[in-house]
Amino acid sequence: MSRRPIGVFDSGVGGLTVLKELIRRLPNERYVYFGDMARTPYGTKSKETVTRFSKQIVRFLLSLDVKAIVVACNTASAMALDSIEAEYDMPVIGVVKPGAKTAADTTKTGHIGLIGTEATISSGIYESYLDTYSPGIHLSGKACPLFVSLVEEGCIEDPVTTEIARRYLSVFKGTDIDTIIMGCTHFPMIEDTIQRVAGNHVKLVNPAFETAKSTQKMLEERNLENDEEIPVDEEAYRFYVSDAPDRFSRIADIFLPLSISGAKQIAIEEY
Amino acid sequence: MSRRPIGVFDSGVGGLTVLKELIRRLPNERYVYFGDMARTPYGTKSKETVTRFSKQIVRFLLSLDVKAIVVACNTASAMALDSIEAEYDMPVIGVVKPGAKTAADTTKTGHIGLIGTEATISSGIYESYLDTYSPGIHLSGKACPLFVSLVEEGCIEDPVTTEIARRYLSVFKGTDIDTIIMGCTHFPMIEDTIQRVAGNHVKLVNPAFETAKSTQKMLEERNLENDEEIPVDEEAYRFYVSDAPDRFSRIADIFLPLSISGAKQIAIEEY
Repeated sequence: MSRRPIGVFDSGVGGLTVLKELIRRLPNERYVYFGDMARTPYGTKSKETVTRFSKQIVRFLLSLDVKAIVVACNTASAMALDSIEAEYDMPVIGVVKPGAKTAADTTKTGHIGLIGTEATISSGIYESYLDTYSPGIHLSGKACPLFVSLVEEGCIEDPVTTEIARRYLSVFKGTDIDTIIMGCTHFPMIEDTIQRVAGNHVKLVNPAFETAKSTQKMLEERNLENDEEIPVDEEAYRFYVSDAPDRFSRIADIFLPLSISGAKQIAIEEY
Repeated sequence: MSRRPIGVFDSGVGGLTVLKELIRRLPNERYVYFGDMARTPYGTKSKETVTRFSKQIVRFLLSLDVKAIVVACNTASAMALDSIEAEYDMPVIGVVKPGAKTAADTTKTGHIGLIGTEATISSGIYESYLDTYSPGIHLSGKACPLFVSLVEEGCIEDPVTTEIARRYLSVFKGTDIDTIIMGCTHFPMIEDTIQRVAGNHVKLVNPAFETAKSTQKMLEERNLENDEEIPVDEEAYRFYVSDAPDRFSRIADIFLPLSISGAKQIAIEEY
């Protein structure tokens, strides 16, 4: 059981920031990553559509005999996590809950900022988790869709990204916000820029980092950790996409410190 | 027959620049527009996927009894037009051919620039059309993916858009390019910026404009024009999407000089 891989999925490449934190924290685990390149982005799609797509991916990952699933996508975590948990008998971890918990523990003023895609902001999912942890916390959201394209174009340390960050984050200036949740998996790639523009009085919460911590805890509690070393000749990380494997590998090079050997394309609609 | 609507489709909102030119040139026609918001963007998807999606949309438009179809999407025109023409008995016009023809007629140096999505550039479709019209013409392509997100964020007259345009178009500086094809339907929205950065010695070709001209010619040749006035109480323009009707209407407001009343959501995968 414990030697089985962990399934990680996202609408595209963004979830690789979550995979990066997982590998860093749980280096003995095997991973299967699925990026839904044919249907990315999820951020602009409806709850019904995102739920249907997510369940297809879960069925695909189950066919590869995973022992747990990490929903490395804020939109899918916000919209589809409940239905997945209700339908499948499998430990499932989303990126929203761990990020929300840490933000609630971090803020002193009780006023948190949230940046992400339109769908994540308007879903209200962060509000509802925060409300459970710490009723009365105030959340101010700001959709930052251009950050996604800028990261995928490799504009990581770039004056244009700084200028766009200034515009987006200007809504938080002059408020008592002391904590900002990076509610989109792409955003940790430009964490330095966001931190610089937001100012040092603001603590940035990286849900990818918190999700890896939660995954480790869950594996420990359920005795699912792998403690045997993975043979050096074995491919411990496997990558699947629904389309555009070349584009995936190229952008993955920006995201991951390891080079990806050939993502495999599969027909996700058949699952 | 002539009173039947013209079907226009795109992967999302970009094709609205084509619809705008069609309405301007053929104001007596009825139009049905379909935007594939659930599966946008096409620019990063494979030929097989784009062809399958396009055929589903053609079948949907045929179910609404259209008299002709305008493929208002460069990627779909590049990848799926041949298969659609081969499979359906219906006049079909893409955006690539009219743009290529005009560019070939315009250039004096024989060196043309092409800006668009990665898929359009790497498809080689503009090269192959240009080769038919005017063998020996030299084409230099440059993928400009950030333009799409900038337009959808409403950054039309904006220093950031100008800066990104400067970076993208710098590859054309110092060459003898005298004509640039705006090979993505979003780009006419920032035509002024592109023209300013490219310089006045460069002639910009807008395939949306040329496509409307070709459509008019085709309707005349086949006696398909509508010469009866449309009753004022009739909805001459109908909009359908595969997802996110609200987001569609909001962005459509940036694109169209008319306000869109409620785009209808349909399940495109059932066609």
